[in-house]
Formats: sequence, structure tokens, C-alpha cells
Amino acid sequence: MTVPGPETAEALLRTTLTAIAPLDPVVVAEARDRQDRLTKPRGSLGALEDVAVRLAGLAGQCPPPMPEPAAVAVFAADHGVHAQGVSPWPQEVTGQMVANFVAGGAAVNAFARQAGARVVVVDVGVVHPVVAAADRASGQQDRHGLPGLVVRRVRPGTDDLATGPAMARDDAVRALAVGIGVARDLVAEGHRCLLTGDMGIANTTASAAIVAALTGADPADVTGAGTGVDAATLARKVEIVRQALALHRPDPADPVGVLAAVGGLEHAAIAGFVLGAAAERVPVVLDGVIAGSAALVARALAPACIDACVAGHRSTEPGHTVALAQLGLRPLVDLELRLGEGTGAVLALPLVQSAVRALREMATFDSAGVADKERASATLAP
Amino acid sequence: MTVPGPETAEALLRTTLTAIAPLDPVVVAEARDRQDRLTKPRGSLGALEDVAVRLAGLAGQCPPPMPEPAAVAVFAADHGVHAQGVSPWPQEVTGQMVANFVAGGAAVNAFARQAGARVVVVDVGVVHPVVAAADRASGQQDRHGLPGLVVRRVRPGTDDLATGPAMARDDAVRALAVGIGVARDLVAEGHRCLLTGDMGIANTTASAAIVAALTGADPADVTGAGTGVDAATLARKVEIVRQALALHRPDPADPVGVLAAVGGLEHAAIAGFVLGAAAERVPVVLDGVIAGSAALVARALAPACIDACVAGHRSTEPGHTVALAQLGLRPLVDLELRLGEGTGAVLALPLVQSAVRALREMATFDSAGVADKERASATLAP
Repeated sequence: MTVPGPETAEALLRTTLTAIAPLDPVVVAEARDRQDRLTKPRGSLGALEDVAVRLAGLAGQCPPPMPEPAAVAVFAADHGVHAQGVSPWPQEVTGQMVANFVAGGAAVNAFARQAGARVVVVDVGVVHPVVAAADRASGQQDRHGLPGLVVRRVRPGTDDLATGPAMARDDAVRALAVGIGVARDLVAEGHRCLLTGDMGIANTTASAAIVAALTGADPADVTGAGTGVDAATLARKVEIVRQALALHRPDPADPVGVLAAVGGLEHAAIAGFVLGAAAERVPVVLDGVIAGSAALVARALAPACIDACVAGHRSTEPGHTVALAQLGLRPLVDLELRLGEGTGAVLALPLVQSAVRALREMATFDSAGVADKERASATLAP
Repeated sequence: MTVPGPETAEALLRTTLTAIAPLDPVVVAEARDRQDRLTKPRGSLGALEDVAVRLAGLAGQCPPPMPEPAAVAVFAADHGVHAQGVSPWPQEVTGQMVANFVAGGAAVNAFARQAGARVVVVDVGVVHPVVAAADRASGQQDRHGLPGLVVRRVRPGTDDLATGPAMARDDAVRALAVGIGVARDLVAEGHRCLLTGDMGIANTTASAAIVAALTGADPADVTGAGTGVDAATLARKVEIVRQALALHRPDPADPVGVLAAVGGLEHAAIAGFVLGAAAERVPVVLDGVIAGSAALVARALAPACIDACVAGHRSTEPGHTVALAQLGLRPLVDLELRLGEGTGAVLALPLVQSAVRALREMATFDSAGVADKERASATLAP
């Protein structure tokens, strides 16, 4: 699949939105009942019980199928707002890190090897050439010389959201369609759990603008230090976001317009990826603030898509906490990560799989011959 | 190995305490330096960076070896204080759940299969016969008819800590020695990560008493609902703990005396297990409040043993939060679990392994040809 044209993309988006439906309430009830018959005090697996119940309702099957094999899609793109000095990292790092992902040398690769997840790297709009480190050293600059990279370039990065729209509306729709297509392809290849990942120097600025636009939060409350900026740069980031909102006055009822005004290509692709997973009724584990802001976009397009989402982790970005609260999602990992790439989602994958495995494999009080408190308590000492 | 006699047990404890030493500071520094050269913003893996650094210092090797294969030891025993009505579950459930562990039907088994960890079940003092469900149904009552159960029965449960010492001092030392022995055996068999687990109806009451005795906290602040009690039973639990502390006046400088007065056999065994792991310089992942209280005992015996500990999770028991704060450990999983068995430790295992894998396998800025912010920032736009 290449990047679809605007009309095809729009049609794919419409089809996908139509296919998204809430959890099956009958199966949800069945899963809750099953939880209560397993050999454990009721509710004692905490937040994991809800995860397993939701995945049952999503699959329409109790117990739900194991969420495996899993694949994390790392959507990479650049940001025109980088020109405003919102990041201490040079823009070239986006492409360099993409090459690092493909070579297997990044944190997300190490975590994915541990979790047994596949890493799929998707270029949706990297500005600088993506070249393997060895080829770069030898002066080789062929961006197509990188086997394993999925090339779905909508455009070479966004424009500067501080001074104009980040992209055309058609580009946002095409990037959404890219995300839908990647989700569909991964499910067609047999994956039963999708995870979001991202790479894009300056993309926390776009995330903050999206969160502010869709939740009404003040930019100061949703803009953070990203991968690490000093106080002066953070103040500048807040000002840029404030300025962008004043310039574009994005309408929260028009999520595609929000993406076009202040979003990023990877934000749009991840929103599409979430919608695609939900339409296929396959769970999608969200990474950090990029995914959180993209999920807000996806929810605005199809509210029920959030039923397919598991919040992998909570990053240190304040906008992520705001987004999670708005989405009503509880993060499974909360360890002050602020790396992106999908690292937080991949770390959460074994927790999701464990939650489902418990519901699938545990004995019941009856089958194990264990006395059940609910029936035994009347016979106890005072 | 059977349960050692008092003199052998005392000698093993002394040898073990002598072998425990702090992290290697040179290797810790080397690991921190390596973290900072990997292709990620410095510190961006949050709490996981510290885990990997500590494991390097423990192993005396940077990067540290992978913490695998892993084994969770589930120490099971009964509690005389059950007679005070501190739990809604009948005491028979301890033995029934032990049979469930051995049969593979409990939550810890499901989680361990997901994480690739071995489950070792150790009877250190279960009162009622441990019989497979099928044999129980057919009237078979031979406790030795359960292949796979490690039998290290120090005594058939403790006495009621509310009315007298839970056990003799010699029994506490023997149970400590059992835990040391199990840790040693597992390391000798090649395991490179140990995890604590527990089973014992009423054991959160003993945990609360240990935490209160060793930290000076008020019983009301460290006593919780365990696997689920009503408000009246919780109030009674608090009163029992308060009464026990008034009766025994345990000396926090005498941790073995604390165990004998208000502890449990599994608490003593887990304390020994932690000491044994630390002496072997193998990491030990702690489960919930039973492990937290046992780790306080272990620390009082050999402060440096905490360097070998990773807090797997934070349970809902208030005493666990107090214990973790006192130990200076940050839990990796915090999902309102309150099951015990080792479930929280096993859930954390992939996080620990991911932390180490990142330090072992990630590319450096140099090797991947990625621009480093620290060197690049001077050349950036304002």
C-alpha cells in the first residue's frame, strides 16, 4: 500500500468509523462473572481485572483470545514548529533514530525483544534522509536503502504550526488513512494486539496543542519538558502553543481540522491506527502523550474506539495526564518514562497479556476445590 | 534439604549475613555512565534506569547479566491468630490454595507462565493437609501425595500472637534458614532472579504487627483489609495488632525476636530468602505486604540486603506503603492488587528484565550515528 489520495483516504476513514462499535455488554457481564468465580478474592487483581473484562467485550468472546502476537508501529515524522526552538535536539535526529529502530538499537527494540513484540517502523513524513548508520558513515544517502522501513510519506514534515496550519486538511486525512491501513495490514497478518509508537523531534509541542484544543485546558497545564528542555525553553513552548491556538482557533468538534491546524503526521497516523484497531476489534495499547493526544482525536471521530484502548503508561508530560483523565483510561505503567517510541506501551504488554491469561487459565473455586469466602464466612469464628 | 536444627540454622544465618555486601560503587558508576551514552535522552527511562544500574552494581558487572531464568518461591504457612476472626476465609484455604499452586491453577501460575518464571511452592507450616483436589474429592488425605511441593515444615502453623508468642525463637531461626536454603538451591540450579511469594490465611495481620514493631507506626496506619474484610473485622484486626504489641513489646533491634513474637513462618522464610539472594548477589523481586514486612526483618539483620531487592509492586495494604517508604524502594507495578502469592512480583519481572535488556542491548549515540543533544544544543536555533 502506498499513501492513498484524498478521496480514497476519506472513503477509508468513513468506512472505518462506521465499523466501530462499543463492547458487547453480554460478554462483558459474562467476563465479570467469570472473574468472580476464579480462585482469588473478588477484585484482588485490581486494575487488571477490568483490562481482561474489556478485552472480552471487545473480542465478543469470554475468555478473550490471548492478545498475541503483538506489533508496535512506530510512526515517524518531522515538525515545522522545530524552527521555533522548542527542542534541544536537531531535526536530523528523527531520521537517525528511525534508522536506529530499523537496526534494532533503540529502547523500543530492546523492550520489544523482551516482550516478544514485532517492531514496525513507518515513515509518514521524515524530513531528513533515513540512512543506516554504516551507509551514512560511508557517504551513502539513499533513503530507500533501508530494508524493513515502511515508507508511507504523506509529506516531508509539517509546516510551522506557530505561523500557519501544520498541514492541509487532505494531508491529515491521508495520514489518518495511513494509520488505518497499517492497523489493517497488521491484523491481516495475524497480529492480535497493536501498540502505538512515535518518533518526531518537537512532537510534544504538537501534542500539547492538540490536547489543549480538544480539552480546553490551558497550554501551561498541558505543555511539558518533552525529552528534556530547560525552563526558558519550556516557557517558550507554552507561548508557542498559546500563540498557535489564538491563531487557528481550532474547533474541538472538528478533530481533522485540529490535526491540520496544530497536529503532526504521526499524530494523525496514530489516531488512524487506533481507529483501525477498534474497527478490527483488536486491542491497541497506547504509549505516551503523542498517543494520548491522538486518542483524543480518534475519540472525537468515533467515541467507541476508546473501548479498544488500553493506556500502556503515564509519561511525565502533564498533557498526558490530562488526556488520560479525559479518556477515562488508567495507565498500567507509571514509572516516569519520557522517551516515546512506544516504550511505555511495550512495557505494558506483558501486563495486558497476564490479565487475559488469568481470566483464561485460572481454576475456579469449584474446579480447584477451594472454599469460597462468600459461601464460607457464615461458619467462621467471630 | 530438610528443616535444619536450631544450631545448624543459626550457623547458616550467620554465614549468610556475613556474605552480604553493598553494591560495587565502581560498577554502579560505570553503569550510570553507560546509561547516559545510550540513544535516549538522559534519564528518559525513568525508574527503570535505576533498576538496571543497581543490578549492575549487585552483579559487579556492567552491563549486568539478564535476570533469568527466574523462579518465584511461594512460602505457605498458617497463623494461630486466625482464631481471632481476622479473616473471612477458613484456615483450610491455605492448604487448598497450596494444592492449587502445585496444580498450576492460581493467578501466580498464570502470571508465571506469561513471564516465563518457574513456580516453587514451599510448605513451611500449613496446618491442614495439602491434598490435590482430585484426591480430596476421593477421600485421599496423604499430604505427601503431592509431587512438586517442597516440604520444609518448621511447625504446623504459628500460635496465636494475640495471646502469646507466635513461635519459639528457634523456630523463627529455622524458618529463616529454610528461606536461605531455598534461595541457595534455586541459585545453584541456575536461577538468576528470585521472586517472593506467600500464602497463609490471616498473614496480613502478622505483617501489620511486624511493620508496626519495626517502624514504630501506629497499628491503625499499617493494618488493612487484606484480601477483603468488612469495617468491623478491620477494626478488630487493628485492635489485635495493638494488643499484640502491648503484650510482647517487641524490640526493633531484635528482628528475630520480632518474628518469634508476632511473625509468621512464611514471613521468616521470606526474610531468609531475601538474605540468601543478597548473599548470592542475585536480585530478588519483592511481592506485597508480606514481602515488605519480611524485607524489614531482613534489613534489620543485614542492611545491605536491600541493595538486592526490587519492589515488584505496591499492594492496597497500608502497611505495604509504610514498609516500602522505610525500605526506600519504589514499586514498579501499582495497580491495586491485593492477592499475594507472588503475583505482584511476577508481574514486575518483565519490567526488570526490560530495564536490564535496555542497558545491555541499546546502541550508543556514537555506534548508531545519532546526534547527541548534549553536544548538539549549542548549534541550534534559539
